[in-house]
Amino acid sequence: MAEIYVNPQKAKEFCIEAFEVLGVPKQDAETVATNLVEGELRGLGSHGVSRMKFYINKLEGGGFNPKPDIKIIRERPSMLVMDADNALGAVAGTKAMSMCIEKAKKTGSACAAVRKGNHFGIAAFYSMMALEHNMIGFATCNSNSLMAVYGGTSRILGTNPISIAVPAGKRLPLVFDAATSLVASGKIIVADIEGKPIPEGWAMDKDGKSTTNAKEALEGALLPFGGYKGSGLSIMVDVFSGILTGALFGLHIGELRGSPEKGQDVGFFYGAVDIDSFEDVNTFKTRVDQMIDELKASKKAEGAERIYMPGELEFIKKEANLRNGFKIGSGVLKDLMDIKNKYGLKSNPEEWLEV
Amino acid sequence: MAEIYVNPQKAKEFCIEAFEVLGVPKQDAETVATNLVEGELRGLGSHGVSRMKFYINKLEGGGFNPKPDIKIIRERPSMLVMDADNALGAVAGTKAMSMCIEKAKKTGSACAAVRKGNHFGIAAFYSMMALEHNMIGFATCNSNSLMAVYGGTSRILGTNPISIAVPAGKRLPLVFDAATSLVASGKIIVADIEGKPIPEGWAMDKDGKSTTNAKEALEGALLPFGGYKGSGLSIMVDVFSGILTGALFGLHIGELRGSPEKGQDVGFFYGAVDIDSFEDVNTFKTRVDQMIDELKASKKAEGAERIYMPGELEFIKKEANLRNGFKIGSGVLKDLMDIKNKYGLKSNPEEWLEV
Repeated sequence: MAEIYVNPQKAKEFCIEAFEVLGVPKQDAETVATNLVEGELRGLGSHGVSRMKFYINKLEGGGFNPKPDIKIIRERPSMLVMDADNALGAVAGTKAMSMCIEKAKKTGSACAAVRKGNHFGIAAFYSMMALEHNMIGFATCNSNSLMAVYGGTSRILGTNPISIAVPAGKRLPLVFDAATSLVASGKIIVADIEGKPIPEGWAMDKDGKSTTNAKEALEGALLPFGGYKGSGLSIMVDVFSGILTGALFGLHIGELRGSPEKGQDVGFFYGAVDIDSFEDVNTFKTRVDQMIDELKASKKAEGAERIYMPGELEFIKKEANLRNGFKIGSGVLKDLMDIKNKYGLKSNPEEWLEV
Repeated sequence: MAEIYVNPQKAKEFCIEAFEVLGVPKQDAETVATNLVEGELRGLGSHGVSRMKFYINKLEGGGFNPKPDIKIIRERPSMLVMDADNALGAVAGTKAMSMCIEKAKKTGSACAAVRKGNHFGIAAFYSMMALEHNMIGFATCNSNSLMAVYGGTSRILGTNPISIAVPAGKRLPLVFDAATSLVASGKIIVADIEGKPIPEGWAMDKDGKSTTNAKEALEGALLPFGGYKGSGLSIMVDVFSGILTGALFGLHIGELRGSPEKGQDVGFFYGAVDIDSFEDVNTFKTRVDQMIDELKASKKAEGAERIYMPGELEFIKKEANLRNGFKIGSGVLKDLMDIKNKYGLKSNPEEWLEV
């Protein structure tokens, strides 16, 4: 199978066109398209245009609401609760994080909770919104249950990612963004679409036995990262994103890949911390740079060529992907062509190919 | 070596007497003693009376300030920065968390940062302060560098713990409290005091090779939990606790075990989230109970007899330790007897023994 490189701008236009055909207002379509393409650019194809198929199914089936009535249902100086009314995740997600940042400007720190949300792409998309405001951003969401709790084999927890973004000075920002599973489910979904095996240790089949078959893994359960610690963090993400927000949690969450008529009711939880309230911003950034320099000057472990900071690899990939296009598999290309053909889109994925 | 069980109340009285002899006001002495004994009760001997030796050395040498002038140096509706003036960690730590909780009552959520702090015991001591206020509590601190960054072998990061406490209804609260190292350094310190080996995989020696010798491990480096994810979280804890607070970070932090004349200048970062602002408290607690019930009903993995929630094991241990006394090693007992003899304390550790 040949490697297929895709022009990011054209991919974005395709997504916008598809969303608009399904009734999504232009500005919202742009937000979601930007979010998906940003996932691809950062090397996370699992959170990129591979999800279009599911987004389109949900819009078509009524599970995702193209014209949601998004409401703030509770609000105090340093918090808000948003009812996303089954919006596309990125539409509600960017609104909530913007409001969270505005509140943090006034009080020093703030949180935002979103209920009735849907798949929101990469968590770093939201935490990183804080960077240009000289804030530290925090983002979590829960997701439909694909993972076991430590000590169990049932699918009971989402992959529940955590992202934290910190501005630096001359250095790249620090951007932590990780699923609390050993791997993000998206990687297994892509392996399934492309018919490829997955490495040993990522997942169990439905009988609790280790498997390298992506389809079996999707029917079984992922494992948390770092044993009981990752499992505990995943539970906490579900408390913040699912319970505190008033969204669903654990095994109750709607899936992205099926039930086109049903919203997922996942929740997002955001935080913004205004650096200038705590410390002179330049001093803060200079010290972050110093920390990075010192961490990178560590004696390297056997086999390590370079010490990467959180998010550094994603910045490197983004630069390369903007230059060369991002790579998709032929399974994803076929899904996109199916969308083009079904809705008679002008944008033609087969013409994006750059290599 | 016989197992030595100790009466918690008597151990607390000993700590209070020792602190008072070294100039600590009674109320502060009680706070720190409660903190250390709470560590023991929760089964974390690594964060208990084994630390008395180092606390006393620091108080005697001037590194810890028995009568600190604790000041709030920056404040907004949802944040504060405290200069702890080299206070005993638990003295400044409890004050800062109390203020953080009061702010969260008024705005819905708040953060507190502490600089010029010292070793503060178990992080859950602070996150759990939020529980009786129907809040979610969050606590981190940094610590002197004992751990390698992912890909490195140099000692460059602290064990930088994270604690999150969530109130439940009929169930026990969820209390996550974990070092971002594979194990807390205190466990290796206790192994060193007791002359015992440590398991393979916990640490590297100073040449970056795996070791089971506690002394070599303390000269070498611990490993982060969960590979690059735990390493990234540890970096983030250092950003919040060390850089944002204006304390020291990474390799600059003073050690607890040496330099009696020097404070550590570690930082603490706290958060409090007022549940009632987001969601009816009873609904929240009922849903947390439901989540716990569902997680515990998971099909169990081979070898797992029970599925534990974050902090559950510590509650079980506390109940047993309150009933039977907590266990210390003969090395720790000797350290405590040395303190008794040096300062002519009335309280006699050898008389605490219950078994």
